[in-house]
Amino acid sequence: MTRSTQRRRVQRIRTDQEGRLWESTRADTLVGEEPLEIRLNGESFAVTMRTPGHDFAMVAGFLVSEGVLGSQSEILRMDYRSGIDAEGMRDYNVVDVQLPPEVAARADRGRREVYTSSSCGVCGTASMDGVLKVSPYEPLTDPLTVDLATVLGLPDRLRAEQRLFSSTGGVHAAALFRMPDAGDEPDAGVGPGLVGSGEPELLCVREDVGRHNAVDKVVGWALEQDLLPLTGTVLQVSARASFELVQKAVMAGIPMLSAVSAPSALAVDVADRTGLTLVGFNRGTGANIYAGGQRIDTSCVGD
Amino acid sequence: MTRSTQRRRVQRIRTDQEGRLWESTRADTLVGEEPLEIRLNGESFAVTMRTPGHDFAMVAGFLVSEGVLGSQSEILRMDYRSGIDAEGMRDYNVVDVQLPPEVAARADRGRREVYTSSSCGVCGTASMDGVLKVSPYEPLTDPLTVDLATVLGLPDRLRAEQRLFSSTGGVHAAALFRMPDAGDEPDAGVGPGLVGSGEPELLCVREDVGRHNAVDKVVGWALEQDLLPLTGTVLQVSARASFELVQKAVMAGIPMLSAVSAPSALAVDVADRTGLTLVGFNRGTGANIYAGGQRIDTSCVGD
Repeated sequence: MTRSTQRRRVQRIRTDQEGRLWESTRADTLVGEEPLEIRLNGESFAVTMRTPGHDFAMVAGFLVSEGVLGSQSEILRMDYRSGIDAEGMRDYNVVDVQLPPEVAARADRGRREVYTSSSCGVCGTASMDGVLKVSPYEPLTDPLTVDLATVLGLPDRLRAEQRLFSSTGGVHAAALFRMPDAGDEPDAGVGPGLVGSGEPELLCVREDVGRHNAVDKVVGWALEQDLLPLTGTVLQVSARASFELVQKAVMAGIPMLSAVSAPSALAVDVADRTGLTLVGFNRGTGANIYAGGQRIDTSCVGD
Repeated sequence: MTRSTQRRRVQRIRTDQEGRLWESTRADTLVGEEPLEIRLNGESFAVTMRTPGHDFAMVAGFLVSEGVLGSQSEILRMDYRSGIDAEGMRDYNVVDVQLPPEVAARADRGRREVYTSSSCGVCGTASMDGVLKVSPYEPLTDPLTVDLATVLGLPDRLRAEQRLFSSTGGVHAAALFRMPDAGDEPDAGVGPGLVGSGEPELLCVREDVGRHNAVDKVVGWALEQDLLPLTGTVLQVSARASFELVQKAVMAGIPMLSAVSAPSALAVDVADRTGLTLVGFNRGTGANIYAGGQRIDTSCVGD
């Protein structure tokens, strides 16, 4: 049986206000981490360490990121059929995916590309081509604009939803917000200065030991809901914006990615090339806009 | 050409003391992130996104973690031979490793194991066996003991060495410290209450967009220095202690891993099984000891 948290004994050392060290032993809640093997039509495709929970969504989201899946209807079947341990127990750490031959062929193509070496336009490196996926939704032309204050409010809303983080301190999170339409009027009765229907709607939040898994779980949820491409949404993540997270956002058609910490240079380059709006160091009181600034309304800001 | 940092234009938004938002545009330093493909005897073995720099050490350390390499002498040759882009330029993102056939065979074994499904003793899951590596140095029986105050001092020493983090805010770091011998006397002239030769010696510190890469770079450095197994050392990392980092420490024979943030449940289980001392939430004024507490001298502590 797999679990998202587990209890372990821990020896705690703390300094009190007089600077003295104190020791106690107690049970502590830790985040679960287990390998998940993904099999496509019976063949092993990938193994990832993940926090158990929302496994099918994670697999679906991962396959969107890899350019294999475009819609839920392309999945013939998904189950834990193969994961049988030595005692004959199902262990829920192997997910079997059945795909039609033409969809599975995309996976084969992806697999081959990992080992290809030819030049590409993003960083001019030979090995980049194998890593970079091309999204069916790029360039991202979503006309979305979001008020700067709304963007700055997203990290707090994410943090408020991080249940596993609250108990374990050891997980990353990703949250998908649908932005209010530009034409939305505030609800009747909501006065000036208050946010009414202008508040972004939290669609889905997921946590995992791996940042990429948290995003895959969110994207997989959206696939199941038939929401791809995710126009009009912003993905807020608890961590840095790596190349990998930028790519996952673009593959799902998400027009804006906001991270609480730094992006890499490559993450910015890919955002620039694909039309993704990339916000980093979003700390509530400030942020850095690295790409796609036209989607952020900064008219309230001095300069 | 690959670089560990790159400059990009960024639109900065900040709140001043009166709560007003201000905007400015300036050049910002970002951490470099590029794919590195590792080829063993001409065959692709792995692709990882990493911060360029110390590539050969990273590859060597990765191969130690994978159970392929035990000593530097097992590497016949390592170079960037294959990485030629469309313009005929070497791109430094493909590392070619030549290994003797018997060493390369260990890599083939490892590759096969990823796709094996049989039960194992750590978590009872079918897929675990393919992920878990067995270290030639386990169980770790290093009689090392370290004073608690010394352990609590390691995160500050790591942070002081994080040059890329200071400029980009976007990288992880790993530092290897050699602990003073239990029998060491303080240097003459160092008075009571001061730390003399009792101070741990910083052997190597490395930074990377990936936590696992930072550790691989440190372990690869140690392999080059013929220091494996790394008895008498502590590995301090800037991040959480995942299963993967615990495994890398054990594969290099490091007896103690200290992380500034949380371990996963599986990380604790593997530490328990292999005899690794695992410290988490090491924040200078306190820490949690999850496994192998016998190596930490807490005699200064109340309870």
